[in-house]
Amino acid sequence: MNRSAHYVGPHTFVVEETAEVPPGPGQVRIDVAYTGICGTDLHIAHGAMDQRVTVPAVIGHEMSGRIAELGPDVQGHRVGDPVTVLPLDWCGECPACRAGHTHICHRLNFVGIDSPGSMQHSWTVPARILVPLPAELPLAHAALVEPTAVAVHDVRRSRLAAGEHAVVIGAGPVGLLIATVAQATGAVVTVLELDKGRRDLAADLGLRTLDPAAVDVAEQVREATGGAGADVVFEVSGSAAGVRTATDLLAVRGRLVVVAIHPTPREVDLHRVFWRELELIGVRVYQSEDYTEAVRLVHGGQVPAERLISRIVPLDDVAQAFVALAAGGDVKVLVDCGGNP
Amino acid sequence: MNRSAHYVGPHTFVVEETAEVPPGPGQVRIDVAYTGICGTDLHIAHGAMDQRVTVPAVIGHEMSGRIAELGPDVQGHRVGDPVTVLPLDWCGECPACRAGHTHICHRLNFVGIDSPGSMQHSWTVPARILVPLPAELPLAHAALVEPTAVAVHDVRRSRLAAGEHAVVIGAGPVGLLIATVAQATGAVVTVLELDKGRRDLAADLGLRTLDPAAVDVAEQVREATGGAGADVVFEVSGSAAGVRTATDLLAVRGRLVVVAIHPTPREVDLHRVFWRELELIGVRVYQSEDYTEAVRLVHGGQVPAERLISRIVPLDDVAQAFVALAAGGDVKVLVDCGGNP
Repeated sequence: MNRSAHYVGPHTFVVEETAEVPPGPGQVRIDVAYTGICGTDLHIAHGAMDQRVTVPAVIGHEMSGRIAELGPDVQGHRVGDPVTVLPLDWCGECPACRAGHTHICHRLNFVGIDSPGSMQHSWTVPARILVPLPAELPLAHAALVEPTAVAVHDVRRSRLAAGEHAVVIGAGPVGLLIATVAQATGAVVTVLELDKGRRDLAADLGLRTLDPAAVDVAEQVREATGGAGADVVFEVSGSAAGVRTATDLLAVRGRLVVVAIHPTPREVDLHRVFWRELELIGVRVYQSEDYTEAVRLVHGGQVPAERLISRIVPLDDVAQAFVALAAGGDVKVLVDCGGNP
Repeated sequence: MNRSAHYVGPHTFVVEETAEVPPGPGQVRIDVAYTGICGTDLHIAHGAMDQRVTVPAVIGHEMSGRIAELGPDVQGHRVGDPVTVLPLDWCGECPACRAGHTHICHRLNFVGIDSPGSMQHSWTVPARILVPLPAELPLAHAALVEPTAVAVHDVRRSRLAAGEHAVVIGAGPVGLLIATVAQATGAVVTVLELDKGRRDLAADLGLRTLDPAAVDVAEQVREATGGAGADVVFEVSGSAAGVRTATDLLAVRGRLVVVAIHPTPREVDLHRVFWRELELIGVRVYQSEDYTEAVRLVHGGQVPAERLISRIVPLDDVAQAFVALAAGGDVKVLVDCGGNP
């Protein structure tokens, strides 16, 4: 038997026994070990995405587990292999797919939002979205591969190079992952964060932090860069102030990576974009190569997965996990889906 | 003797005899043939840059002429050589210069704004800003090399490739030059312009035009691109509406080049920047390689200099040239400085 957590409406989950789905041709069934909760999952749980999600919905896409059963004709995988997934399913036919940008497919199926996700014991998925994991990587840590791939994608799109100065605005889970990935690149990283708890955690992880409410951030960054300004700024706060700070901090030819989702248009200082030949770079999810690098960084410990996981809750308590996450104070909350006995 | 047009205050020029400046070491004296008037010159003439310009000021930087006299030790040039200038003088010491971005020097001297320009018969400049011209290129056409270099820089920064679709928002002189340079790259180019006269001129130059007041531009661009959207949009209108249209038109991974100078921050749809992984690219003046390409395009006729020059006025009538340009209807107005007998 399977056991699944179903989102049924704002702040409400029902956990119940369901039938296992036997894998069809090209599919595998996974025993899910852990599923992390991300900001989008939290949005869904709050009812903010009810027009997109079909209830009852099994959500979740930051996962790890082991292959439990292979569908007919599935090659290259074995029962027991540790895996995560790259939860994107594209059409292959739209203009974006034809141009090679399959991760931004016009009709993208985001597995775990637009189709069933991993907050269940037993999960059947297309074999082609599987990403193999090193045998010795703890499965709890492996649940951080997906959000790490987001950070790797963002850092890669920024063209950040060793020795460059990067500023990360906002030290939530995504900001912290970007900061650690940027540091692994050999960049000098400064994290801006208003919340003392998050700032302290960033400092504990060895990151230089600044409180924008307490210091003149532009002055500090100028001083730290010999008057040049930052080479790259990652805007992860989602605030109008964050966007304003970002353009203020950048050096000539600096790059602003728009990581946070800004629901409404934001004022951008286009005069400074012209005057310093700045770039703004949009980023969305990840591509296959980002997963390769993310697995390497989590496995190698450059991304300190253990220190970022603040809580692991059993599947039956999933609703409480969302409440805890929304209350703040947690970084990464994992749901134990039972597949790591 | 020399004869110079001096800007002395809003809408007021004094043309008078002045002494020729003999070229010192590392300098040359040029007999100026033509000086074009650009948007920045118009701003200065209207008094909008009085806090930057020291009056009385000889302005002008879109020029052509012949070397009249060499300073001591000047090598590699001969009296009589046709030349234009790349009117940027940088410090070599600031962070931008040290990073190789000398055209965005923190203390840039823009020759013709921050130091004397070419609206005079005889102009003495550092030999290192000279750009040699082909002997057979008419000097009137050569006065368009500088604004063409702006367009070349903008197109180069956009990474526009043959076969891609580009949209130019605004068909003033800079927009038309960008559109012709983009077309020379092998791109498919559409020009958006509200003004019928400018739209007709663009059509006469062989460009596809659309009136944003009359048609659904996004729909038209989608249809023309098989549903994808534009690969590159050049925002040359300087309007809030232009910025909004630009993000609406772009394909996945499309690039928005911010050409116009927006004096105040503009609302930018950062959700779409994220959703389609768009890029915004700031552009400012040009670099040496842009001049090489600009000379080639003006010389080869891909940039139709003759058709873009709508009026040539004598130096003594320079004030009227500014009035005519401000009234609209002209594309490129040249001042005949007397050096092309």
